[in-house]
Amino acid sequence: MDALAKSLQGRFLVIDGPDGAGKSTQLNLLRDRLTLIGAAVEVVIDPGGTAVGGEIRNILLHAKDLHVAPMCETLLFMASRAQLVEEKIRPALTAGKVVLSDRFISATLAYQGALGVDAKMILDLGGKAVGGTWPDLTILLDLPAEIGLDRIQRGRDRMESRALAYHQEVQRRFAGLGSEKHPYPRPVVHLSAAGRPEEVHASVVKALEETFEIT
Amino acid sequence: MDALAKSLQGRFLVIDGPDGAGKSTQLNLLRDRLTLIGAAVEVVIDPGGTAVGGEIRNILLHAKDLHVAPMCETLLFMASRAQLVEEKIRPALTAGKVVLSDRFISATLAYQGALGVDAKMILDLGGKAVGGTWPDLTILLDLPAEIGLDRIQRGRDRMESRALAYHQEVQRRFAGLGSEKHPYPRPVVHLSAAGRPEEVHASVVKALEETFEIT
Repeated sequence: MDALAKSLQGRFLVIDGPDGAGKSTQLNLLRDRLTLIGAAVEVVIDPGGTAVGGEIRNILLHAKDLHVAPMCETLLFMASRAQLVEEKIRPALTAGKVVLSDRFISATLAYQGALGVDAKMILDLGGKAVGGTWPDLTILLDLPAEIGLDRIQRGRDRMESRALAYHQEVQRRFAGLGSEKHPYPRPVVHLSAAGRPEEVHASVVKALEETFEIT
Repeated sequence: MDALAKSLQGRFLVIDGPDGAGKSTQLNLLRDRLTLIGAAVEVVIDPGGTAVGGEIRNILLHAKDLHVAPMCETLLFMASRAQLVEEKIRPALTAGKVVLSDRFISATLAYQGALGVDAKMILDLGGKAVGGTWPDLTILLDLPAEIGLDRIQRGRDRMESRALAYHQEVQRRFAGLGSEKHPYPRPVVHLSAAGRPEEVHASVVKALEETFEIT
């Protein structure tokens, strides 16, 4: 096992960012890379990733006709996350795996924060929901919302069909994550998602090496 | 409109208690009585009572094969409640109606509290979920769990099929609601649910008169 793989054992990494920033692509590239260098990797999807989380995800993403209040939406994300942490993330970390999560509490700060839900309350609810299991590093893929929306090829779900102004506010909150204005209790590294997938991947690996590798 | 109906305008009342205590029967009797004396009554069911709340209720009560962590369960109840308050309870109160709710945060204290979820955290999450819209009075129907379970005629759902020891702990928490050991931030009146429905109904009305009627 190489040095990076070794130092990532039992670490919890999140990839987050605006829709269309290429999170899934980067998650897959990173999973393959880490597996190749000998790490045991657990990939999870938030919301979802468990049986009950899948049911909650269905409500959140595909219930276009339901009017869902921002606070209800926030609590549904937290419910899914509570299950994901208990059922998947915590056992995998205990087993020494690297956990890669597609989104986490950072996404609620951006999406529900932009709907007016108080950021401090989101962080407080988040901490309770995950019982203190915060990520060791959040890799934030920064991308202007216009480009992000343009990149999306698949049909837009309820989240993505919201107005552009909303997505711009979401993007601002993602871009500011970890700043004084948009605090986050754990380390965040911002990377440009504007390059080709292999270029972005290289910067993801570099960020991990700089953060975790014992040299 | 009689004096009681008048003093109940814009009041939020909850009927809660162990399974089989006769909540639904009492709720219907009270709704009929209040309507008869001239009050505008809005009856809501927690969890549920809204479109998204119905979806959440389905997950909670009918997903027998899903493993749901206590914290996830707690947050699902709170999500449903957040929607119920925003969509139904608050507008009805603003319109001067009496709101009668079948269960509320008190039920999470009993059922999820008995699963080990911290009571202070439940109250904190609850306050955030409902944005401070706590009931003016919670009518707690006290009944030993054995009798409650025995009373239940319909098929047991996921909640009700839990072991008797669990239901006894739930009953203890309901019976103690509002005490120093099991604090609740708003008034609770405990009534015995052991009598005939008309007798229990008479004590419910008496409790309302004593609490609200301007004499």
